Amino acid sequence: MVFLKKLITLTLTIALPNKMQKLFEHINKYIEIDHDEFQEITKYFEIRKVKKKELLYEPGSKSLGHYFVLSGCLQLYIVEEGGTEHTLQFAIENWWITDYLAFHNNTDSECHIQAVKASTIFHLTKKNEEELLLRFPKMETYFRKIYQTAYGASLNRIRYLFIYSKEEIYFRFKEAFPDFVNNVPQYLVASFLGLSPEYVSKLKRKENS
Amino acid sequence: MVFLKKLITLTLTIALPNKMQKLFEHINKYIEIDHDEFQEITKYFEIRKVKKKELLYEPGSKSLGHYFVLSGCLQLYIVEEGGTEHTLQFAIENWWITDYLAFHNNTDSECHIQAVKASTIFHLTKKNEEELLLRFPKMETYFRKIYQTAYGASLNRIRYLFIYSKEEIYFRFKEAFPDFVNNVPQYLVASFLGLSPEYVSKLKRKENS
Repeated sequence: MVFLKKLITLTLTIALPNKMQKLFEHINKYIEIDHDEFQEITKYFEIRKVKKKELLYEPGSKSLGHYFVLSGCLQLYIVEEGGTEHTLQFAIENWWITDYLAFHNNTDSECHIQAVKASTIFHLTKKNEEELLLRFPKMETYFRKIYQTAYGASLNRIRYLFIYSKEEIYFRFKEAFPDFVNNVPQYLVASFLGLSPEYVSKLKRKENS
Repeated sequence: MVFLKKLITLTLTIALPNKMQKLFEHINKYIEIDHDEFQEITKYFEIRKVKKKELLYEPGSKSLGHYFVLSGCLQLYIVEEGGTEHTLQFAIENWWITDYLAFHNNTDSECHIQAVKASTIFHLTKKNEEELLLRFPKMETYFRKIYQTAYGASLNRIRYLFIYSKEEIYFRFKEAFPDFVNNVPQYLVASFLGLSPEYVSKLKRKENS
């Protein structure tokens, strides 16, 4: 079985563009799908290239999507009445993102979803997700595992917010997710951790001095 | 189909103890299962009565479980080095609870799980959950929906922590979840919202004056 999986992966490396290959490998980390199934599954996704700062969704827009990041970075954020932005979630390579309650309940979201940098993404509409899950029940297992990991990680984030000082939050986060901190603009890392950009600049100066 | 579902529910009202009936209805909110399937599914659960303050899991214990609250309330919390407790999650009636990353990765958890009050719960072991999901793939859909809701709710909680003042957090939470605030001891509501018990007492005095 392992041999077969390696053979499929090898075949796909040749047959698929590099970005598609990444999604194939990502799905195969959670469930087993073969080349033919993957080809069918991707028919439900729309591949899109988005520019830096391009908005995929804002309050009032119709049809909130579920997005998978092939390359780049997306950000889910809300804007307070006073204009301050708060990042609820980021999605870097191989992460899914949407406003889950709104997406699954088919209600309007109060959030914005924006590309932090030029990104290539898969866009899954609500209708297509439902059809995909009916046709490929094993994708239920894939999404169940994706959500349970995301939920566990968000409880960990709440834990960080509760128990660590602002300085500890930043350094522990940086230690745990160096790629993330190095690939996302500093003011957005600050917003994700509930810190002001000025405070993170101060910490970085302290670190480098 | 609706008629059939009503008939099954009616039959179960007679055939099942009240508490089991609640779980049957809860699962049927997300997927369709019939009486026979439900009887088979519950064979994977162990029903337990736990006393107030009874610990179901603490760091170092073996075999972290996945718990469904039939009645009562469970709490997932961590203890800081200094001894302060922080509540990461509560489960009231019809909620699941565990340390998801630890449960699903089969690693030790740093959390405690305790009964806030006398409770009746279903306990699902990791091994039984895996067997249940293999035998009843539709339960993948059930858990996928449970997790996506829990994940969405936890992003909302982070949003509360970011954008509202301490006073606003308490009153907005109370307005949104009156049953919860009225059924859980005040010091635990405080711990869930990242507030000190003294601060919540002060707010309640202010509210009543």
